[in-house]
Amino acid sequence: MMGLIDFKFGNLKKGERDLITDVKGVKVGHFTIDDGDIHTGVTAILPHEGNIFKEKVVASSYVINGFGKSVGLIQVEELGTIETPIILTNTLSVGTALSGLTKYMLLNNEDIGKTTGTVNSIVCECNDGYLNDIRAMSVKEEHVFYAIENAKEDFDEGNVGAGCGMSCFGHKGGIGSSSRVIQLDNKMYTIGSIVLSNFGAYGDLILNGKKFCENNLDKETDKGSIIIILATDIPLNERQLKRICRRAQVGLSRCGSYLGNGSGDIVIGFSTSNKISHYEERDIVNMKILNENKIDLIFRAVADITEESVISSMIHAKTLQGRDGHVRKSLNIREGK
Amino acid sequence: MMGLIDFKFGNLKKGERDLITDVKGVKVGHFTIDDGDIHTGVTAILPHEGNIFKEKVVASSYVINGFGKSVGLIQVEELGTIETPIILTNTLSVGTALSGLTKYMLLNNEDIGKTTGTVNSIVCECNDGYLNDIRAMSVKEEHVFYAIENAKEDFDEGNVGAGCGMSCFGHKGGIGSSSRVIQLDNKMYTIGSIVLSNFGAYGDLILNGKKFCENNLDKETDKGSIIIILATDIPLNERQLKRICRRAQVGLSRCGSYLGNGSGDIVIGFSTSNKISHYEERDIVNMKILNENKIDLIFRAVADITEESVISSMIHAKTLQGRDGHVRKSLNIREGK
Amino acid sequence: MMGLIDFKFGNLKKGERDLITDVKGVKVGHFTIDDGDIHTGVTAILPHEGNIFKEKVVASSYVINGFGKSVGLIQVEELGTIETPIILTNTLSVGTALSGLTKYMLLNNEDIGKTTGTVNSIVCECNDGYLNDIRAMSVKEEHVFYAIENAKEDFDEGNVGAGCGMSCFGHKGGIGSSSRVIQLDNKMYTIGSIVLSNFGAYGDLILNGKKFCENNLDKETDKGSIIIILATDIPLNERQLKRICRRAQVGLSRCGSYLGNGSGDIVIGFSTSNKISHYEERDIVNMKILNENKIDLIFRAVADITEESVISSMIHAKTLQGRDGHVRKSLNIREGK
Amino acid sequence: MMGLIDFKFGNLKKGERDLITDVKGVKVGHFTIDDGDIHTGVTAILPHEGNIFKEKVVASSYVINGFGKSVGLIQVEELGTIETPIILTNTLSVGTALSGLTKYMLLNNEDIGKTTGTVNSIVCECNDGYLNDIRAMSVKEEHVFYAIENAKEDFDEGNVGAGCGMSCFGHKGGIGSSSRVIQLDNKMYTIGSIVLSNFGAYGDLILNGKKFCENNLDKETDKGSIIIILATDIPLNERQLKRICRRAQVGLSRCGSYLGNGSGDIVIGFSTSNKISHYEERDIVNMKILNENKIDLIFRAVADITEESVISSMIHAKTLQGRDGHVRKSLNIREGK
Repeated sequence: MMGLIDFKFGNLKKGERDLITDVKGVKVGHFTIDDGDIHTGVTAILPHEGNIFKEKVVASSYVINGFGKSVGLIQVEELGTIETPIILTNTLSVGTALSGLTKYMLLNNEDIGKTTGTVNSIVCECNDGYLNDIRAMSVKEEHVFYAIENAKEDFDEGNVGAGCGMSCFGHKGGIGSSSRVIQLDNKMYTIGSIVLSNFGAYGDLILNGKKFCENNLDKETDKGSIIIILATDIPLNERQLKRICRRAQVGLSRCGSYLGNGSGDIVIGFSTSNKISHYEERDIVNMKILNENKIDLIFRAVADITEESVISSMIHAKTLQGRDGHVRKSLNIREGK
Repeated sequence: MMGLIDFKFGNLKKGERDLITDVKGVKVGHFTIDDGDIHTGVTAILPHEGNIFKEKVVASSYVINGFGKSVGLIQVEELGTIETPIILTNTLSVGTALSGLTKYMLLNNEDIGKTTGTVNSIVCECNDGYLNDIRAMSVKEEHVFYAIENAKEDFDEGNVGAGCGMSCFGHKGGIGSSSRVIQLDNKMYTIGSIVLSNFGAYGDLILNGKKFCENNLDKETDKGSIIIILATDIPLNERQLKRICRRAQVGLSRCGSYLGNGSGDIVIGFSTSNKISHYEERDIVNMKILNENKIDLIFRAVADITEESVISSMIHAKTLQGRDGHVRKSLNIREGK
Repeated sequence: MMGLIDFKFGNLKKGERDLITDVKGVKVGHFTIDDGDIHTGVTAILPHEGNIFKEKVVASSYVINGFGKSVGLIQVEELGTIETPIILTNTLSVGTALSGLTKYMLLNNEDIGKTTGTVNSIVCECNDGYLNDIRAMSVKEEHVFYAIENAKEDFDEGNVGAGCGMSCFGHKGGIGSSSRVIQLDNKMYTIGSIVLSNFGAYGDLILNGKKFCENNLDKETDKGSIIIILATDIPLNERQLKRICRRAQVGLSRCGSYLGNGSGDIVIGFSTSNKISHYEERDIVNMKILNENKIDLIFRAVADITEESVISSMIHAKTLQGRDGHVRKSLNIREGK
Repeated sequence: MMGLIDFKFGNLKKGERDLITDVKGVKVGHFTIDDGDIHTGVTAILPHEGNIFKEKVVASSYVINGFGKSVGLIQVEELGTIETPIILTNTLSVGTALSGLTKYMLLNNEDIGKTTGTVNSIVCECNDGYLNDIRAMSVKEEHVFYAIENAKEDFDEGNVGAGCGMSCFGHKGGIGSSSRVIQLDNKMYTIGSIVLSNFGAYGDLILNGKKFCENNLDKETDKGSIIIILATDIPLNERQLKRICRRAQVGLSRCGSYLGNGSGDIVIGFSTSNKISHYEERDIVNMKILNENKIDLIFRAVADITEESVISSMIHAKTLQGRDGHVRKSLNIREGK
């Protein structure tokens, strides 16, 4: 059977769990619906353990290919902060997830919409309609609550949460994660990624630099999408985070993607080291940023963890038969005979 | 009493109704909730009378200030098309409106999410929380259906639909609209706008070039937002539409706005003359575009109709007492003694 | 005769000189060619008195309308810094000015292109071809040296440097400047602007909120351009600077501009309080930034100083007869009878 | 010895010459300076054989990483057209090349700057300072004239023109080109690329999916740059061209690049099938565009030709000893023993 151990993703040192939660404070939760024709769910990424609305994290996003329906990026771009957990789900459930996340934020912040402004909820999506009866819109608002409230450091990859019904390079995709540690000024920092993989055409998959399957039997074009969330405790400002987000596409290319027309490829990155207080009283505040001359190592790390997260999502995913008899085989099983 | 007749907005000829629906095929519908502490609603703008998903319109958007939560613009930017009605509502109801619009699209297109891809629903918002108990999230999915299904050419302005609880320059704001006709190659074309006005600080309002109220008694900053939708039958491509969208900010400046930090100012523009078929069979298709040397007149028109739409929203709006005794007076009434 | 004293530009307190050089360390120098058919020149803005390549300033730029040929903005956008003086000149002389500025940087930095990378020289332009025989390409590399080496705090406005042959709203334009002081955390900060004004159609000019000339006799469209440089000692990061740069367009709108097709309207902003060392040895560095909740006052200041700088450029400019008998009258003279 | 025949770059059919000039009308010219410490030059790409200012081509650009000094892209972005040949040269010679190109345009268009507006000259660059004494600024304006006037369909790759002193993945880089043919609506179309390759760290090079050199002996980071010009006769509008330009980065990733901090990676794309007349008299003009559902094949082609152009530049480049004894070996020679 094939495991991550069979792959090499650059030379940098991995984090303890090799998960995005190696970045201190970050947690991930899932709610999975895996029944009959329904194979979908919700995944929540929490930037830190406190009140995210009151203590926002510096953030940026990058749209690799905008054939997607993610919500909340306009304000991230303008203000350079994230103030809610990030929710992943299927494309047609974005509205419900958005309402659920907004209600969760209202419940935990009595000031929102009353004595202060509103809240910029972030929801990203991929289309799991090949395996999941996506028109059923099976995700409910309470599933968002569940995913947030059950977020933890040790979380599953593969067919879980929003990843339950996703496809990747004609195989089964889903949730994957990875991390690296980097030394700066004699201190160790971590950068991690989590992906919701649902992209790539069958014949394009590259493993360890080699085409995995030469024949493109079903002549699929790349109609999927991928959401990539990057977290780090390296002090970065929003411009630096955007540059880092852009390097995720290197990881996608290494997996064999050519950034297909129909693939909504979105990256969001945040740094837990720079928090912005909602009720800041000082006019001028301090921030730490990276000496840009040292950014190359982080660029390399992003390329590596993005590639690894995609492959990890496929390695952890199990074969699934979904709606109308549609099947996506596990990458593991094909190789594992 | 003050009416639009007391104002001058440039020298161009107005359309027949002086509404966005002067652009042939465009319709506007409202659902209004105006009861107790609830003053909100839904407004739908339909680009044409056919199946919008099957016959998309060429479109672009422009973010003047991204402190906003509008949904769907990433794909508009990438693909240059709109494939659903545009829904306006309050900030915390975007999720519900998005679900409602998506369900409407599913109901009218059996292929979506089954035999073709998903759908990029567009929902824009302003925060009516000063007058409306926005935390109640009173908008329901069926309100979106109602607004779409009751869209027509003759529609109301002021405290209607999404505009019910909006504020503008410390007065009552809401829905406003305007249009101009322009001759090109011996043919008459129309450009129209509709705004959801909810921006501007009290002391900043400028009417006919003059400060309306010198004293900024309540020291408000500009915490609102404005959504501006531009429609035209002039053949424009998405780059030209983006340039045109940008000129809307001239209209805002003329009203006295300095593009405040908290104001999510979003413009969407579409041209009904260039339709993109979802199931296009030809590889190469024809498009008509404007000779760029002739674009100045359209820029002027956009500045004029944006300014007029804002003032029209205020002139048509009636004084409203909302949640917690909050009051916004009509611009009309103040002057009308 | 009309002077700046006849105008009101907001309520904020002006800096001591009401010039961009009220920002400590900023200097401006001109080289003017004003002879026969040649009416052009070079203006240099120095962000601080030290070695700008070695101590870069945090910066951003914003393209209001990209019908222009400014040089160097791609790298400003990517890295968020400026590392040379900013040079203004006429459109066809950008190449020469770029070579001149690059040579100046090489002369003062032996490491460039040898032991370190190259240098990102910044040159902005407007088209003075109505008054100046621009095809003569009269600017020489040494004029750039002169402008830089003669930069000072007290500099002239009007028909000087790059402004010598510029036109504005059908009148004589050129160099204008202005500043405001703002208190933050009990300390006074300054923001200043300098413009190279060459935009606006005759009939569009607005002074103190009123149309200056109702008749658009020569039916000119807005074919010019404007370059706006903003300097401040307020601690801002590059995202905040970009937001601030965007508010310059409010000032242009107040003067009557509708952001015409042919007008290359470019804004560059920098903060002298955040310097980035070229040979920084630490991996993580400190930066101060503004509490975003306090940015509105700065937005207002930018709108005010941009408007004032444009009007100041016109008030200070003298009537000039240029190539082929073309004449631009001073705004001052028209009114001054 | 290693040749292009040893490599596979996708499955699409190559053009007749496998050069950008397979796109009808496109020509390329070089002026090379290869003497002593000077190893630099100029390369000119002509979009068509007519007057480019009078008959502009629809175009777009994309900045992969903006650590670069290319000139002219602001206006390409705003107006979606190119109106001059594209000039490539070394970083510190951009000013001279810009003046040279501008003079060439003035000489061939008496109206520029006199009876019509100015001209947006496009110059792109890489830093050849490792091999070339770049501080000598050896490129002269007449070299631009020479490159343009000697442009032809059969042109050299490797150490020629702007590519003379460039480095790539620690080896000798320079000029490379490639093309593919694609069938649309029963007609054959061509897309081609030319690159000025000067990017990549030694240990990162990937050939045919395999690391070429495992040891990164000199620990170089990626400090170079790459300019990629795409030409096609497929009818595309500027948005589609931008999407196509973005896929060039897939080709770079395949070669082993992680899009390093110091690398100014710029892509320009144009379509010869949509020409925009400078003196267009009609208000509305016709344009042909691609059915977006058919764009995937073109995306694949761009990834393939970008990768091939880079490798081709290295295969054609000869070992060169430059300034201060610096040497870059040919990729061919290393393998060719």
